Amino acid sequence: MDRLSRWKRDVEAFLEEALPAADEPPRLLHEAMRHALKGGKRLRPALVFAAYEAIRGEGAPAWVAQVAGAVEALHAYSLVHDDLPAMDDAQYRHGLPAVHRKFGEATAILVGDALQALAFEWLAGAPWPSPEVGLKAVGILARSAGSRGLVGGQQDDLSLERREAEEAELESLYRRKTGMLLEASLRLGGLAAGATPEEEAILSAIAGPMGLGYQVADDVLDVVGTLETLGKDGGLDEERGRVTYVTLLGLEGAREKALGLFRQAREAALALGDGAQGLQEIIAVMAQRVATAREMQA
Amino acid sequence: MDRLSRWKRDVEAFLEEALPAADEPPRLLHEAMRHALKGGKRLRPALVFAAYEAIRGEGAPAWVAQVAGAVEALHAYSLVHDDLPAMDDAQYRHGLPAVHRKFGEATAILVGDALQALAFEWLAGAPWPSPEVGLKAVGILARSAGSRGLVGGQQDDLSLERREAEEAELESLYRRKTGMLLEASLRLGGLAAGATPEEEAILSAIAGPMGLGYQVADDVLDVVGTLETLGKDGGLDEERGRVTYVTLLGLEGAREKALGLFRQAREAALALGDGAQGLQEIIAVMAQRVATAREMQA
Repeated sequence: MDRLSRWKRDVEAFLEEALPAADEPPRLLHEAMRHALKGGKRLRPALVFAAYEAIRGEGAPAWVAQVAGAVEALHAYSLVHDDLPAMDDAQYRHGLPAVHRKFGEATAILVGDALQALAFEWLAGAPWPSPEVGLKAVGILARSAGSRGLVGGQQDDLSLERREAEEAELESLYRRKTGMLLEASLRLGGLAAGATPEEEAILSAIAGPMGLGYQVADDVLDVVGTLETLGKDGGLDEERGRVTYVTLLGLEGAREKALGLFRQAREAALALGDGAQGLQEIIAVMAQRVATAREMQA
Repeated sequence: MDRLSRWKRDVEAFLEEALPAADEPPRLLHEAMRHALKGGKRLRPALVFAAYEAIRGEGAPAWVAQVAGAVEALHAYSLVHDDLPAMDDAQYRHGLPAVHRKFGEATAILVGDALQALAFEWLAGAPWPSPEVGLKAVGILARSAGSRGLVGGQQDDLSLERREAEEAELESLYRRKTGMLLEASLRLGGLAAGATPEEEAILSAIAGPMGLGYQVADDVLDVVGTLETLGKDGGLDEERGRVTYVTLLGLEGAREKALGLFRQAREAALALGDGAQGLQEIIAVMAQRVATAREMQA
């Protein structure tokens, strides 16, 4: 089994075990929390594991799955709330009905709220190398999740529909909405492994271009994926008149930008040596997605 | 200045200082976060300070206001989400328009999300006596906020409208929806003061009856306060056909129950000696509210 599949399996085993059982009251809430954590690429958990192994070598101990699960729970909460009728009003997520469609809007709000609390509960309960490190990890996740991170990015994203924006503004939005949690994933994996401040700095240097590249690639895939799968021109972003890297740079320009950022991230990862193979693979997969996209469109 | 006013002033000064400025982007979000923290009795911060002073004597250091502010931010987030159209659809809170009415539903969802993250950021950033204690505090707050605490209680509350319930069910709901965060406030104040496990146990023993008493008193005030202020019989709970301690025990029965619980809480606080004067005062104010309520109705 390759390492990406192993990490996915490990975090999913943790989630299955650690989430409240679907028949524990309040049943509707707990069933919906489990629903919210079904599916997805488990990218953030993979980054936690990959950063750990980049610092300490292969074979992360079992408790690292709890850190990975915490980051995934935080990500899942943000998707549940983003999908709400008052936000993106999405109907499906990971090929399943969105939580509010299956369980109602009130429960979906509460599912997100409970998953955020659970993320911090798991993080605070993990056997960190030292309590200092654990407390630092909580601070990192909290900042990445707050009004100067993920939530602030989402707020800007809502106000970006149907108006012009400069590239710098879009970059700032993407950094907060997605980049900071990806960076937190890497840093938390590093902290779990006892990373030195220098190693932490390298992980952050990888996270910057990787996170932005990931979002730029998403802009490309939103256009190309739609051509491919729906046979019509323009994805959700374009329907909404939302500014994206594709509207700013054109499809080819955005693709080149993403690939350039992924190259930068891979170069930054060289400083971690052979241990960073897992990280290199993750970035390669991201780059592959957007490289292939061109062929699908052609 | 009496100590209750001093604690209120101190936590409000912390919030004013520590919340992101209203003109820091995203401005709408930050302005709305500040709006969400306006008003209220600041009961939970008072419990943090009171527990601290019960253990260590008068004069909590300035950083305890950060712990108190974290608990208040968490409480404020829960009110913003409870007030949403999909939940209680409340129009006013603390005499001001509810956040979703003034800033829109999407922003109100994000305000709650950001305030929860901020609560954990503040908690993790406080200079606890030791990092172990800080990490323990994060775990306590996270559990009190999660699906087995506040959020689970709110989920049950939503499903309680227009159906029968036993007293045990209502007690369990109240314990989770309100009691656990009140208990967390006391325990966090105790941890800040370096409480021994025995002292922590006393704080929890106070929290149990105090928290339930507080909610039972609220049921009484919901009926009596309405008679007083609106001149009609039956408050919001009754309009909704919601089971309360008043529907279960009658108005007098519920009032007696609340007063009995407050007596229990004050007796438990005796074990902390003279330092617990602040705590005794807080419980006395709670009891006073419900005792006076009878007179207003008469």
